[in-house]
Amino acid sequence: MNRIINDPDDVVEDALAGLRLAHPDLLAGTAHPRVIRVAGAGSAGRVGIVSGGGSGHEPAFVGYVGPGLLDAVAIGEVFASPTARAFQAAFKAADGGRGIACLYGNYAGDNMNVKMAVRLAAREGLDVRTVVANDDAASAPLDERGKRRGVAGEVLMWKAAAALAAEGADLEAVIAVAQKTIDATRSIGIGLTPCTIPAAGKPNFRIADGTMEVGIGHHGEPGIAVRAIEPARAMAATMMETVLPDLPFDRGDDVAVLVSGLGATPVMELYILYGHVAEILADRGITIRHRFVGNYFTSLEMMGVSVTITRVDGELDRLLGVKARSIGLTVTGDA
Amino acid sequence: MNRIINDPDDVVEDALAGLRLAHPDLLAGTAHPRVIRVAGAGSAGRVGIVSGGGSGHEPAFVGYVGPGLLDAVAIGEVFASPTARAFQAAFKAADGGRGIACLYGNYAGDNMNVKMAVRLAAREGLDVRTVVANDDAASAPLDERGKRRGVAGEVLMWKAAAALAAEGADLEAVIAVAQKTIDATRSIGIGLTPCTIPAAGKPNFRIADGTMEVGIGHHGEPGIAVRAIEPARAMAATMMETVLPDLPFDRGDDVAVLVSGLGATPVMELYILYGHVAEILADRGITIRHRFVGNYFTSLEMMGVSVTITRVDGELDRLLGVKARSIGLTVTGDA
Repeated sequence: MNRIINDPDDVVEDALAGLRLAHPDLLAGTAHPRVIRVAGAGSAGRVGIVSGGGSGHEPAFVGYVGPGLLDAVAIGEVFASPTARAFQAAFKAADGGRGIACLYGNYAGDNMNVKMAVRLAAREGLDVRTVVANDDAASAPLDERGKRRGVAGEVLMWKAAAALAAEGADLEAVIAVAQKTIDATRSIGIGLTPCTIPAAGKPNFRIADGTMEVGIGHHGEPGIAVRAIEPARAMAATMMETVLPDLPFDRGDDVAVLVSGLGATPVMELYILYGHVAEILADRGITIRHRFVGNYFTSLEMMGVSVTITRVDGELDRLLGVKARSIGLTVTGDA
Repeated sequence: MNRIINDPDDVVEDALAGLRLAHPDLLAGTAHPRVIRVAGAGSAGRVGIVSGGGSGHEPAFVGYVGPGLLDAVAIGEVFASPTARAFQAAFKAADGGRGIACLYGNYAGDNMNVKMAVRLAAREGLDVRTVVANDDAASAPLDERGKRRGVAGEVLMWKAAAALAAEGADLEAVIAVAQKTIDATRSIGIGLTPCTIPAAGKPNFRIADGTMEVGIGHHGEPGIAVRAIEPARAMAATMMETVLPDLPFDRGDDVAVLVSGLGATPVMELYILYGHVAEILADRGITIRHRFVGNYFTSLEMMGVSVTITRVDGELDRLLGVKARSIGLTVTGDA
């Protein structure tokens, strides 16, 4: 295992140390070693936005802490939920006196720990409400949407909710826009190689050479099919066949598209795939209003890609374009 | 080979198509299919900034086209120089009437083609001057600096020169600041895995499991030593042992640090390494004024990292902080 680490058990602490040294203008520590809050004034006088999840998905989650995005995150071990205490501390760190929106992904550990943290926080008088992202259309049938995993769609949910919070909206309105965003969002991933958690030292799943795992999860969860590798054009079609009918996305819709590498995918290839997705949407009469292509939500050094599509109404269109600054996503508002 | 491509011979065209669809606010086409210019007003009334090089290093080179950065780039096949005609067309595309600074990396093909393009452009009345980046301290001894390769230090050279050009400086001043930046810059890479050019279908070099190639080039050029994998802390020390004495960087210096993944390195690990580099510089009494950590200059899906350090005087410190927007680097000026 050729990796840039010290003791494999220390990767989270070592990475957090580097993150804080690299971005003192964005990130600040808290009393809890696994909670990072936004540097500066923070959320005083407005709704605080919190997320959290396992490490190894960088820039998610800590890389979305910043002005116009997350106020605090709870950080877990690699591919493991943060503790309830960490979520609770993140709520405190993001408290500006008007309640906290905890916007996170649908995984058993995160659900359990967020739920416990919300109870603990309530005893301290903190009003925390949650939205659970379940945008991965490949992870369960539509009529069992509650079982679907949250993936890169979380980024767009955070962006919209944080932009509304920055405008002074109340907790109910912020929660409503987060829910609206994720309800209008569908994602799917394709995995081409596995990844290795440093403390494990070897991949915990396999993808045979010449095959791809359609619908793979961010931790290598099995997808809907293992198929022979297709040309990029066909991969895009395969992904859109699952995603578009699911919402459904229809002629005349405005959408945001986010193409995220899973870690080891060459940037060229993310753009090759984006080009084909854009062609398919144009053919269907769907208009792309916002485009994001890069490594937004990764799985260590997994090779592969996820595509996320969000239908935007006038409000979401506006909120996604509002200025924000973070490691993972910066919107200048100049475009 | 599990990759997101169509015909391996089409990867450059397919990626450019996706790039242009994804970033109409940043990138515009030209009459030459391998030349991309900045969208909008461009360089009218100021010095134009041009670069170019082989594909596969994304976001370099095309990902640095944008306001406050490059005005046009010439794009080559994967790991191969653009043609002289492409460079010539990029000069034309970047011409705003006050001359063109072509700031590129020291590779035989690029040198030959840029030289030819400058002659062709001169016949058309274009005043093009060049600076050749040779920041890779591991690629040749200091007394043969002219043989050293250009690597991620190019990004900081582009940033400084473009910021000065935006202020209305003349060609001589822009060239001088580009040269000053690269003269004050040293880089080194460590390779952990090879990469595969799609059209070749297999790696053109090997790195054995458990070993690392210190001083590796962006195309897998051999470095100064093959060693057993070290902990991240020791890797940082190894890199700084080559880089710091070379300029040399001394107590009291102000610097910019850029840590770039080579493609497949988990983001966590880039920050782990950055943390150790920052510790070493702090111990030496060197102050980090600007920090960049991410995938700035890659080699397809190579795993590994490069570290670039630039000594900044007051002028460079200021120019690196000026607002700029591109796929690869956005500086908001808010920090």
